[in-house]
Amino acid sequence: MSFTDIATRVHNHNYRMDPVVRTLLDTDFYKLLMLQLIWMKHRDTPVTFGVINRSKSIRIADEIDIGELRAQLDHARTLRLSKREMIWLAGNTFYGKKQIFRPEFLSWLETFALPEYEVDVRNGQYELRFAGPWSLTTMWEIPALSIINELRARKAMRNMGRFELDVLYARAKAKLWGKVERLQVLKAAGRLKVGDFGTRRRHGYLWQRWCCEALQEGIGDAFIGTSNVHVAMEIGSEAIGTNAHELSMVYAALAGDDDQMVAASRYAVLDDWRHLYDGNLLVILPDTYGTTSFLRNAPDWVADWTGARPDSKPPIAGGDEFIDWWKANGRDPKEKLLVLSDGMDIDSIEQSFRHFKDRVRVSFGWGTNLTNDFRGCAPNGGNALDPISLVCKVVEAAGRPAVKLSDNPTKATGPDADVGRYLQIFGTEGMTDHAVDV
Amino acid sequence: MSFTDIATRVHNHNYRMDPVVRTLLDTDFYKLLMLQLIWMKHRDTPVTFGVINRSKSIRIADEIDIGELRAQLDHARTLRLSKREMIWLAGNTFYGKKQIFRPEFLSWLETFALPEYEVDVRNGQYELRFAGPWSLTTMWEIPALSIINELRARKAMRNMGRFELDVLYARAKAKLWGKVERLQVLKAAGRLKVGDFGTRRRHGYLWQRWCCEALQEGIGDAFIGTSNVHVAMEIGSEAIGTNAHELSMVYAALAGDDDQMVAASRYAVLDDWRHLYDGNLLVILPDTYGTTSFLRNAPDWVADWTGARPDSKPPIAGGDEFIDWWKANGRDPKEKLLVLSDGMDIDSIEQSFRHFKDRVRVSFGWGTNLTNDFRGCAPNGGNALDPISLVCKVVEAAGRPAVKLSDNPTKATGPDADVGRYLQIFGTEGMTDHAVDV
Repeated sequence: MSFTDIATRVHNHNYRMDPVVRTLLDTDFYKLLMLQLIWMKHRDTPVTFGVINRSKSIRIADEIDIGELRAQLDHARTLRLSKREMIWLAGNTFYGKKQIFRPEFLSWLETFALPEYEVDVRNGQYELRFAGPWSLTTMWEIPALSIINELRARKAMRNMGRFELDVLYARAKAKLWGKVERLQVLKAAGRLKVGDFGTRRRHGYLWQRWCCEALQEGIGDAFIGTSNVHVAMEIGSEAIGTNAHELSMVYAALAGDDDQMVAASRYAVLDDWRHLYDGNLLVILPDTYGTTSFLRNAPDWVADWTGARPDSKPPIAGGDEFIDWWKANGRDPKEKLLVLSDGMDIDSIEQSFRHFKDRVRVSFGWGTNLTNDFRGCAPNGGNALDPISLVCKVVEAAGRPAVKLSDNPTKATGPDADVGRYLQIFGTEGMTDHAVDV
Repeated sequence: MSFTDIATRVHNHNYRMDPVVRTLLDTDFYKLLMLQLIWMKHRDTPVTFGVINRSKSIRIADEIDIGELRAQLDHARTLRLSKREMIWLAGNTFYGKKQIFRPEFLSWLETFALPEYEVDVRNGQYELRFAGPWSLTTMWEIPALSIINELRARKAMRNMGRFELDVLYARAKAKLWGKVERLQVLKAAGRLKVGDFGTRRRHGYLWQRWCCEALQEGIGDAFIGTSNVHVAMEIGSEAIGTNAHELSMVYAALAGDDDQMVAASRYAVLDDWRHLYDGNLLVILPDTYGTTSFLRNAPDWVADWTGARPDSKPPIAGGDEFIDWWKANGRDPKEKLLVLSDGMDIDSIEQSFRHFKDRVRVSFGWGTNLTNDFRGCAPNGGNALDPISLVCKVVEAAGRPAVKLSDNPTKATGPDADVGRYLQIFGTEGMTDHAVDV
């Protein structure tokens, strides 16, 4: 005999909206680390973020209703951190340290609310912009991305029947577990460290959580945690992540017309960072304006940092470059940490693991291909659930355009003239174009 | 916010037993068709059935607690057909015909209860026997097999955690759906007919039902139905199946010492059958004592039957033999039906479909590999969920041992002396040993 809980069923029918983001902690941990720095040093600097869909062939504005998008964004703006969440942030240990967040920062954070947004439609894409003080706008990055990605997924599933959905998720689970079994082989062969970096492009919150639980279950202590603060809290894992390109991009913009100041800004960021954090939080993100020139010009103390996260070169080339540089600067790579997080999937994880084993410590930040790999899973075919390359980037800081070059000029952002100027300043040493999947 | 339905949870904790068989309709349809014949012609003939595990290396009695086994068998004995079930049996159309069951048979069936059983343990196997009037003991076959198979599956899953089970079923669903997609290709290429024959060796009732729903969803009208009467009723599909070896085995035993009567008995069965049923229910099961000699000696009217179910030769060889025989007897194979049901899986379905397409009508009775294919699905490995070759056969009728030879002497059952006598009577023409998987 099956028993229908009438109250639950009526409640389900009463749903006006199923919020994508239900707490401000449903964001990446590095946003909180960066936010503390931003709040201390640049809280009122005007910084504008914009969402950019690099998968131009996908016309997101045709897929997602603007009313639904607004409803989700508006709902996110109503969120405040709860008492329980504040206690957890204040009392939890992050990266082995207590009280990583200062009390005055936390008391400001207690009343934090996401600021306004602007949304327009152009060429089938949403022009979504967040303008205002950096300490507010920065927090839109992750919820904006996960809202759009989840609304796309919901759209793709809207006409699927109960059985089709059952098969869809069964296949996605089977697919992920196949990857987990390959990780188990790596774990048996050496010191494996894998973390979830997939909040922004996830299929959905519940699915991201399931993926993290699969890693917990499947590889135990080789799962080092998740970037998603709320998932970390819920499943009792570590919250992980350090910093992102937005810091160097804003610092470079703030350097203004002085080319030398712009060139120096990428080290100024690290200097501010190292006065606030230490240990495993000292991870270099070298590629905002090209890794090769970054390393050649870096002050010696940069080589003291614990690790590096090459993010736009192929992982093996990017990692080897660091090993060579650490060696050339008299540091032992075996004591250093490489964080590989650019479009990783099980094949590239395996290859990189085998390549770097016994040469350097490696951890994998596994993103989109962990939390949003539904390719081939829909029972009736189609690729509507395939992930797209959606980013939320700084577009302007203190009235100046923000620029990112990266090691892969395909990923460059900013107005052409400014990209040109930055290429003059930083050079193109070590840069190569290659396609961006996710 | 998740909401726990406290009443449901407490109810779940109150479970004393989770019955494997919850209704007498949780059996194969052919049992009811045969039962009507048995009840009309031989209702009081004493016939003993016994469960035989052909996978000797699996010590079932070490796996399943005898108390649990008894509890399940005892529970099955408490079952009676409900009013709703009786109405459905009387009012439903089977194989396109109304009132296939006679009113006097149905009124006897209304109070039907499974008879007593005897259980012993020998060499790690359960010796499970059902002795009594044929019209009662015959009905134990399917529930006895599904109870043992499901208790084995439950044992294998007893120590799996919530997550492990989630992955297990996800993988099994993904695996089955992969097969369904291959069937979709066949359906697009010609007239495909696939039915579920998997009650006896299923993983579990709910899983069998899911498999049928997957076929309904995936191949639509190419899914011709399920042998499981209760599943057919629940999901609104056809109940399918015709007759089994037990008829010829009992008829042969009843023929006694007269070798000629024994030889003739295999046609006497068909003669009784054709006076009770017609149309698509006229399907020859030729292999009880060897197909080749059966066909050579068959009266001409046997070639008028609608179809045949070769059950122990390789499907293509077995089917070709019938095509040749129909042709030799002046019948058009294109008007005939082959039912292939011996250990079929997607590979052999594909091969047979392509081989027989445009030469004869074919339908597939897909059993164990449909409803119990969990090979490679357990996240922590092991083969405890692999199906075994468990059968429930007539061992004695009217005081004489029952014998089955089949086209594959590996499957022969009966005491050696009697098998020897039957081999003398029927010959060994066309018989070949080959391994039995499931």
